[in-house]
Amino acid sequence: MSSVKIVFLGAGSVRYTLQLFLDICKTKELWESYVCLMDIDSEKLAAVHNLAERAMNEIGADLRIESTTSLEKALEGADFIVNTVLAKGEGEEDGYTQYEIMRQVGEKHGYYRGIDSQEFNMVSDYYTITNFNQLNTSLEIAKAVERICPNAYLMQTANPVMEITQIVLRSTKTKIIGFCHGFAHVKDVFEALGLEFEKVDWQVAGINHGIWLNRFRYNGEDAYKLFDKWIEEKSSQWEPKSPWDVQLSPAAIDMYKFYGMLPIGDTVRNGSWKYHYNLETKKKWYGKFGGIDNEVERPKFYEELRALRKKLLALAQDKTVKLSQVFPEEFRLDKLSGEQQIPFINALVNNKPARLFLNILNNGIIPELPNDVVVEVPCIIDASGIHPEKIDPPLTSRIIKYFLMPRIMRMEMAVEAFLTGDKKVLEEFLIRDPRTKSYEQVKAVLDEIMNLPFNKKMKEHYKWE
Amino acid sequence: MSSVKIVFLGAGSVRYTLQLFLDICKTKELWESYVCLMDIDSEKLAAVHNLAERAMNEIGADLRIESTTSLEKALEGADFIVNTVLAKGEGEEDGYTQYEIMRQVGEKHGYYRGIDSQEFNMVSDYYTITNFNQLNTSLEIAKAVERICPNAYLMQTANPVMEITQIVLRSTKTKIIGFCHGFAHVKDVFEALGLEFEKVDWQVAGINHGIWLNRFRYNGEDAYKLFDKWIEEKSSQWEPKSPWDVQLSPAAIDMYKFYGMLPIGDTVRNGSWKYHYNLETKKKWYGKFGGIDNEVERPKFYEELRALRKKLLALAQDKTVKLSQVFPEEFRLDKLSGEQQIPFINALVNNKPARLFLNILNNGIIPELPNDVVVEVPCIIDASGIHPEKIDPPLTSRIIKYFLMPRIMRMEMAVEAFLTGDKKVLEEFLIRDPRTKSYEQVKAVLDEIMNLPFNKKMKEHYKWE
Repeated sequence: MSSVKIVFLGAGSVRYTLQLFLDICKTKELWESYVCLMDIDSEKLAAVHNLAERAMNEIGADLRIESTTSLEKALEGADFIVNTVLAKGEGEEDGYTQYEIMRQVGEKHGYYRGIDSQEFNMVSDYYTITNFNQLNTSLEIAKAVERICPNAYLMQTANPVMEITQIVLRSTKTKIIGFCHGFAHVKDVFEALGLEFEKVDWQVAGINHGIWLNRFRYNGEDAYKLFDKWIEEKSSQWEPKSPWDVQLSPAAIDMYKFYGMLPIGDTVRNGSWKYHYNLETKKKWYGKFGGIDNEVERPKFYEELRALRKKLLALAQDKTVKLSQVFPEEFRLDKLSGEQQIPFINALVNNKPARLFLNILNNGIIPELPNDVVVEVPCIIDASGIHPEKIDPPLTSRIIKYFLMPRIMRMEMAVEAFLTGDKKVLEEFLIRDPRTKSYEQVKAVLDEIMNLPFNKKMKEHYKWE
Repeated sequence: MSSVKIVFLGAGSVRYTLQLFLDICKTKELWESYVCLMDIDSEKLAAVHNLAERAMNEIGADLRIESTTSLEKALEGADFIVNTVLAKGEGEEDGYTQYEIMRQVGEKHGYYRGIDSQEFNMVSDYYTITNFNQLNTSLEIAKAVERICPNAYLMQTANPVMEITQIVLRSTKTKIIGFCHGFAHVKDVFEALGLEFEKVDWQVAGINHGIWLNRFRYNGEDAYKLFDKWIEEKSSQWEPKSPWDVQLSPAAIDMYKFYGMLPIGDTVRNGSWKYHYNLETKKKWYGKFGGIDNEVERPKFYEELRALRKKLLALAQDKTVKLSQVFPEEFRLDKLSGEQQIPFINALVNNKPARLFLNILNNGIIPELPNDVVVEVPCIIDASGIHPEKIDPPLTSRIIKYFLMPRIMRMEMAVEAFLTGDKKVLEEFLIRDPRTKSYEQVKAVLDEIMNLPFNKKMKEHYKWE
């Protein structure tokens, strides 16, 4: 057992922090560690501190919990930093609400789902080009890490993971790793086919929200043949259990047939406009809910999140309640949340090898992609470090050329716009948008977004007039 | 002097054949060579043979002219093959008319300028995805070259040069080189700035119809400074002399400002939709004619071409006329046409070194682009072969990432569709088109194009139902 300091930035996103905190409590090897909760909202911070203490005591774990509103204090002596910060600009609204306001402006100018929803990036809260506040705050955090605890791992959990990790790696020496849980949806596939998880020889690789099941073998045989059979015999009876349940949707199958490998997790939500023109189209491809990235389900989800947060804040006020009784599933000691952050820490600190899917600099891991791009790839992590697996078999040529490269081009544009402040790049990004009908439309939508009160810094950054 | 056999395929495109034939007549080192004119249209072939004989005699050149309607006979013993063939499908219309018919179908379905007009490929007769007849005929010719005269150079002159050279290089061992004259528009720039051509240190590089003035120095100084001054002081007075005169247009300057190097020749016509939404937009960016790629100027140009061809065919009937009196400029002995084909032959055959801009396999010439892609680059040609220059300075990152790579992706899709016959690739190509509003629209436009009588072979190739 080694004692390390684990910091949660944006700990006020109560639900997510508690989920990972419970993973720490359940990982005995990490007991005696320091857990530092940091948020600029002192009220939420007090609540999450209270709930964390009680959770720890109910489980009987032994951790030292601190909380602070100071980023600098939190980072002092830190070994691991889980960054879940969702930044926001000036104003009373939370970050998600500000996203939604920008989406409404986009829709007013003819951009269904807003200008950040793009071919190969349709996930509703993965804003890349109007997200100056988030990108800037994330970079400031990375710079503080570089200054205060340069050897720490910055575990980027808040989106857009791809753009943030890329910006940080190009601007600092901070050891940033991007985390996402989308890969776990391989289980939906294995379950549908009735495969025993342990017997599947599988690999997924790509970029964040653009990963593909490149290896899929079972009992020494090509398991895609089983999947083809499932498509033929059972896919027509498929029904989504929730708006999030899209792994086996017609969209996933259509992408599989075109690209030659199955898209995994959020990748299924990130096809081209073919699947996204409007709610009706989305329902055709993602089932009766039309997925989660639409005008009906997304607001409902935000309502659920707000209700859960309210519930958690109320629980923080009522110390008589036993949390493990309210959340029996989450408190099961034999099961971690499925998030990768704590297994990552444990693997490095206590040499408990783990196979994780991490967003790291390519440097030849996917030889067909540029070296200086962040990719999401399987790695073995142990005390000696992060060891990317060989990607075998390689991703198909269609995945590389027709999906990943164009998505990478948009990443490059978003990153360049942010790093240089050249508004021409934002304009060019939108000129290539299928919803754009004229240059005037581009200027008008950007103008209205720049002039939103919470985008004051962005407007200055781009010297918008 | 060496005697070689130079073949013109599609010699019935009278004007172009005569232009190059005159270049041969003016190149004494090539006298005693065989010139073989080949076309499947025996009437036009007889006319061009007649005119070529008379031109040769008027100049006093010494060449052996043959003509044949047989491809095989033409290729026997060939050393150089100039391919200007514009294929056509069944029906009475010529190839250009068939292009225009397909464009009309596209426009009917909401695709202004037709579905082959694409971001970075707006040149009106550069069809890539509906051009099965042309791609297939060009490949058949290349295969015949491989079989009959494997050591000959196939000089691909007919468009789409990029897609055809790529397909041939991926499917045969034929030594194909792509030829284009667009680079010559650097002269427009030098003239506007009052520079002496010989004193300019310049280089252009990129891909066909996507080339950029990467090096531009004068008297040891950065000549882009002179160009910036020209923009500031004189660009507002610029007026196009013809629809083709776009090298110094607002579009060229706008692209220069964004990409960091000046686009040259047809590249200026190949920007994004920003410059092309409609005729009004085109006029804003290309001057009063709106360039040549629009619904007014392009049909006029085809009319001019037809009138010229008619005139040439009439001249072939009237042997009393002296051609050098009708075309005094073309018959000037001190001046070649500016086309690169004959200097290329002379450089290789007679070791007359020439600096030419050729479409050849990249293999690291532009290190930032894939090796297996055809690029258009400056080369020194002499008896020892083709020697690409080092591209110095390199193309800007924006040119590579935001212009060339997306254009290359579309080339890859067009080439894959053609080579595999997978109609899903055609659909996917159009799904990403900004003019597409629904998958149904994609299917409808492709369906109508496939069912045109002259696209019978294409329909079979894609197993269209």
